[in-house]
Amino acid sequence: MSFIKSNENISDSGKRAEGASGALCNVLHRFDAQEQGEEAYRIVRELYPICRSITGDGVRQSLCLLQGTAPLELREVSSGTQVFDWTVPKEWNIRDAYIKNEAGERVVDFQRCNLHVLNYSVPVRQKMSLKELKPHLFTLPETPDWIPYRTSYYRETWGFCLTQRQLESMGDGQYEVSIDSTLEPGHLTYGEYRIQGATDDEVLISCHACHPSLCNDNLSGIAIAARLAGLLKAVSLRHSYRFLWIPGTIGSITWLAMNEAILPRIRHGLVLSCVGDSGPFTYKRSRRGDAEVDRAVEHVLLHCEREFQALDFTPYGYDERQYCSPGINLPVGCFMRTPNGRYPQYHTSADDLSLVTPSSLGESLLQLLRVIQVLDENGRYFNLNPKCEPQLGRRGLYRQMGGTKDAAASEMAMLWVLNLSDGEHDLLDIAIRSGIPFAEVSRAADALKEAGLLGSAS
Amino acid sequence: MSFIKSNENISDSGKRAEGASGALCNVLHRFDAQEQGEEAYRIVRELYPICRSITGDGVRQSLCLLQGTAPLELREVSSGTQVFDWTVPKEWNIRDAYIKNEAGERVVDFQRCNLHVLNYSVPVRQKMSLKELKPHLFTLPETPDWIPYRTSYYRETWGFCLTQRQLESMGDGQYEVSIDSTLEPGHLTYGEYRIQGATDDEVLISCHACHPSLCNDNLSGIAIAARLAGLLKAVSLRHSYRFLWIPGTIGSITWLAMNEAILPRIRHGLVLSCVGDSGPFTYKRSRRGDAEVDRAVEHVLLHCEREFQALDFTPYGYDERQYCSPGINLPVGCFMRTPNGRYPQYHTSADDLSLVTPSSLGESLLQLLRVIQVLDENGRYFNLNPKCEPQLGRRGLYRQMGGTKDAAASEMAMLWVLNLSDGEHDLLDIAIRSGIPFAEVSRAADALKEAGLLGSAS
Amino acid sequence: MSFIKSNENISDSGKRAEGASGALCNVLHRFDAQEQGEEAYRIVRELYPICRSITGDGVRQSLCLLQGTAPLELREVSSGTQVFDWTVPKEWNIRDAYIKNEAGERVVDFQRCNLHVLNYSVPVRQKMSLKELKPHLFTLPETPDWIPYRTSYYRETWGFCLTQRQLESMGDGQYEVSIDSTLEPGHLTYGEYRIQGATDDEVLISCHACHPSLCNDNLSGIAIAARLAGLLKAVSLRHSYRFLWIPGTIGSITWLAMNEAILPRIRHGLVLSCVGDSGPFTYKRSRRGDAEVDRAVEHVLLHCEREFQALDFTPYGYDERQYCSPGINLPVGCFMRTPNGRYPQYHTSADDLSLVTPSSLGESLLQLLRVIQVLDENGRYFNLNPKCEPQLGRRGLYRQMGGTKDAAASEMAMLWVLNLSDGEHDLLDIAIRSGIPFAEVSRAADALKEAGLLGSAS
Repeated sequence: MSFIKSNENISDSGKRAEGASGALCNVLHRFDAQEQGEEAYRIVRELYPICRSITGDGVRQSLCLLQGTAPLELREVSSGTQVFDWTVPKEWNIRDAYIKNEAGERVVDFQRCNLHVLNYSVPVRQKMSLKELKPHLFTLPETPDWIPYRTSYYRETWGFCLTQRQLESMGDGQYEVSIDSTLEPGHLTYGEYRIQGATDDEVLISCHACHPSLCNDNLSGIAIAARLAGLLKAVSLRHSYRFLWIPGTIGSITWLAMNEAILPRIRHGLVLSCVGDSGPFTYKRSRRGDAEVDRAVEHVLLHCEREFQALDFTPYGYDERQYCSPGINLPVGCFMRTPNGRYPQYHTSADDLSLVTPSSLGESLLQLLRVIQVLDENGRYFNLNPKCEPQLGRRGLYRQMGGTKDAAASEMAMLWVLNLSDGEHDLLDIAIRSGIPFAEVSRAADALKEAGLLGSAS
Repeated sequence: MSFIKSNENISDSGKRAEGASGALCNVLHRFDAQEQGEEAYRIVRELYPICRSITGDGVRQSLCLLQGTAPLELREVSSGTQVFDWTVPKEWNIRDAYIKNEAGERVVDFQRCNLHVLNYSVPVRQKMSLKELKPHLFTLPETPDWIPYRTSYYRETWGFCLTQRQLESMGDGQYEVSIDSTLEPGHLTYGEYRIQGATDDEVLISCHACHPSLCNDNLSGIAIAARLAGLLKAVSLRHSYRFLWIPGTIGSITWLAMNEAILPRIRHGLVLSCVGDSGPFTYKRSRRGDAEVDRAVEHVLLHCEREFQALDFTPYGYDERQYCSPGINLPVGCFMRTPNGRYPQYHTSADDLSLVTPSSLGESLLQLLRVIQVLDENGRYFNLNPKCEPQLGRRGLYRQMGGTKDAAASEMAMLWVLNLSDGEHDLLDIAIRSGIPFAEVSRAADALKEAGLLGSAS
Repeated sequence: MSFIKSNENISDSGKRAEGASGALCNVLHRFDAQEQGEEAYRIVRELYPICRSITGDGVRQSLCLLQGTAPLELREVSSGTQVFDWTVPKEWNIRDAYIKNEAGERVVDFQRCNLHVLNYSVPVRQKMSLKELKPHLFTLPETPDWIPYRTSYYRETWGFCLTQRQLESMGDGQYEVSIDSTLEPGHLTYGEYRIQGATDDEVLISCHACHPSLCNDNLSGIAIAARLAGLLKAVSLRHSYRFLWIPGTIGSITWLAMNEAILPRIRHGLVLSCVGDSGPFTYKRSRRGDAEVDRAVEHVLLHCEREFQALDFTPYGYDERQYCSPGINLPVGCFMRTPNGRYPQYHTSADDLSLVTPSSLGESLLQLLRVIQVLDENGRYFNLNPKCEPQLGRRGLYRQMGGTKDAAASEMAMLWVLNLSDGEHDLLDIAIRSGIPFAEVSRAADALKEAGLLGSAS
């Protein structure tokens, strides 16, 4: 493990040459969703057993494992650091926890599933009756085989989460309760990776990395962010890309508080969460509602040939709550499949390795790459021959035989780009208005630029 | 009866202390819709037999009876007064009217129902054949047991309204026709009551009080306005509230012509009509269409757990025609159940005491109180901790146990208020955007103000 | 034939007196759709046999025939003239063309149908095998009895269009191929007719006149434009009206390039095409999308008591492509029944005299006249009595008997005009907002102007 204290500079990989544009298009061309999905699933499986929280060694261990996929750096912020209205909490670590019955058998055992401990439980070692114990026990009576996931980060207490069946099988005797944890001054740890592009304008990709053995929420997001970083690091891009693997809420608040100077450079952003289940895509818009990233994601999903839903921003969910607080107000949306709280396994032990699939992970990554393509290739142009259509035919850009019913797709894309390139509409506008996928519109713009018919408006 | 000449000052009940905010909330908390509805119904029943018109003693008598419910004052404007493009007409009074057959029997008798006389009929005393009489007779052949309601305010004529069956039973002989009315210089009379609030900004509540024995249109509006005035007079309010009981058209024109200086203070207004039948609520928007009162009423009705309809403004209907004329253009909508002309009993003798019910009246009053609450408590605030969420948990405003599926309703309301309180959105915007009832949003704002997290934006 | 070189002045028919307003209303009143449709159909039938192209004698002959209906003038532009990015092409003329089999029989014969020749074919006279011939043959295998319509204006080649059945019956022997055409420097010819109105503000009506024996596309548009011009020339109008019968694409580009100074005067415009089939109306909006002409056509079609569709602008179709190019951007929409490419007979020999009907042509003309009425009579006014309603009754504009359920249609129109005539809404806005047909709103405005209640806002 190599730690870097927060706010040190991350070494840039150097300004990329602008000439290599189109490389992203090659990544998409070569993209094998199944293979990519399996790589992502491998990461999920590897991280699954680790007990993570908003601080502690589980986070560190997880981030180090991700370094095999993307060269992220670990950053540490001391407990007690003031971050806006919040204070970085003490660091929590746990070695073992159990409830033993009178026979000395572990009826609840942290070693079997780390969800069994109320996350951030203070240490305890005590004998008590079931009646005394009960206020510290959490179950899900309606799904009696599932362990709930519960936390108590900011009120010092302890507890156990167990299945309803476990609870019902516990007799009235005395129990030995043990949580071998520490809650002490230490650090909050997060992962960060920045790819320098041709410009300093940034795209932010953020995911919460604080949940223990829960796969869709959010090992799926963690893995996809790592794979996306891995794919983009080799590509010539216009924007710089910043990836964050952070504890939910306190992590984004900490990062925002310590990086306010960077915020004006963030042009677009996405929070990734719950991207591994097989449900249709869900996009939750940024607080602005019509930011470029909002329009880009909705355009891409409209062409993904599956149902999807786009939801207006609400101040509940993931770290978009902080990125979209009124004093920050970044254009950051949240990219998901089935949203938090909308699938039965949410925040239970049933959010396990069977809920996420390689093919869902692969498809999520593909759509994200398409969104990145829109964000990176979008631009505003001027038709340099704005009075009537230019004669595309003599430039070899238009069919010579007239009378057929429809124009070819590439011709339609060129006509649209020419018609709407008045300095007011960008390529994404044109793609949305025409119903033509962005990639086709972008290709048409390239052909027209090459023919000298289109000039940059910026 | 104590009359006040128009344009004299109405004595204010004195500026109310601002401290007592929330009192309206108490009124709503204590509100018993059935009891309130019965009180309103009692007023309707009491006013029902009186023969009202746009002028005359019937109006005076009705307004005096209302003084038992709300301390309104009677105002008088002389016949011949020029009010914009109109002239206050002569005063009409009527003592008796009938058609007698040759046997001396009253076949049509004003004493049995005041609708029998064409409202504003000039005096007549004459013998004539049925054939001569017929041009003066009005019936409803399709509902042969109902008497129509007809008026002729601005063309001097006379007539009788009767049931089709009455007409059919009239033989060919001679008839004695008598209308013992007077149409002479006098006054136009209306009722006015103003409650002084913490500010001079006014909410206008207006209803037409010119119809004779017709219950839904508009004894229901008259009674509800009186009950609303009675309830509000004891409450500490931000706005001042002005109630008008006026003759339709000429009454609002007269009031507007004589009170132009007041108009800039009128921030919101509602015309009340047809609020006693059991149909779903109808709101007709002000000419502006998106005035605060329009948004307030629609928000309240959206949460009333019944179907309702919101209609765009049209220049036909009740006195909103005048309040929303282009040179006046006040933000005044019209609050109804079934609108004018959209129920079969409209403007007939069947709009009687059986068409309106205490429970409908009570429910109408309840929704109006909720609208008043929105108008009076609405405001624009600044989140004083706008960068990321404030830590609500340490202020006791947020649950300490994490991991549950949804936030509590009160927590969601606070998150919404914090997120959208950027000086651009008022609490009503937040209620509409979040789908949370205004009262809950207002409570959340109070809690946040108390915690020092919210400051006034005005 | 009398030709005028392009850019000479067209003699105006002289400024019309403004007094005769309402004459358009008389045209509409007297309009007999069946009779008008038959007149238009007669033109279609007369022009049907002529072989038209984007240049040549077929166009000249067609335009001369139209002079019997509207006094249009023929204009000529020399081959080689530079028009924006294009060059006026050589002139094409054709006398005969055929494919003869070894027996000397014409198996494909231009004399039977001019669609048989690839339009703009260069001359050829040659013997060749079927195999050599095949690359020059075009058929429609899915509709084996129809001849396709194909062109090659800008690449010099030759070809034949024939039915699939003809092709299948051709044996393997030698064929004599002959196209007796010329492609030489000459002129591009178009028709133009301008009616001077009370102002120089223009309405442009444009149709493409370059298609050979195809009826719906676009003899229907040619004929309707001529009939419309014939009807309007006798009427007192506010706008001036300019009619163009031009070859598609190159024609509008030529006209636009040579008349840039006129463009600022064009307030509204319509391209007419495919107006003779029996499908529902289709309106394709101008690039602006909410131009007055867009709102006018949609309003008229909404009241045409038939289904219709309104489509957003796309940069494909007819000459609206050029009129709506970003550097021209005129408010020009396209008025059609079934659009190009959306009926099976499109660009085939089946677009013949049986596809268009007199009644469809008549109905198209009627709707266009109604659109013209909106454009010509629309205006913005001020209610001169804006505070409350004026007393319409004493001016004889309102019923005297009150209490009836609804206002008369004419009364409602007056109330709407009064309410919305605040200088911001024009009569078309008021018609759209109220749902009342424009003609009724316009009549109400006339009555109010006469009563001194409405003043012009411009």
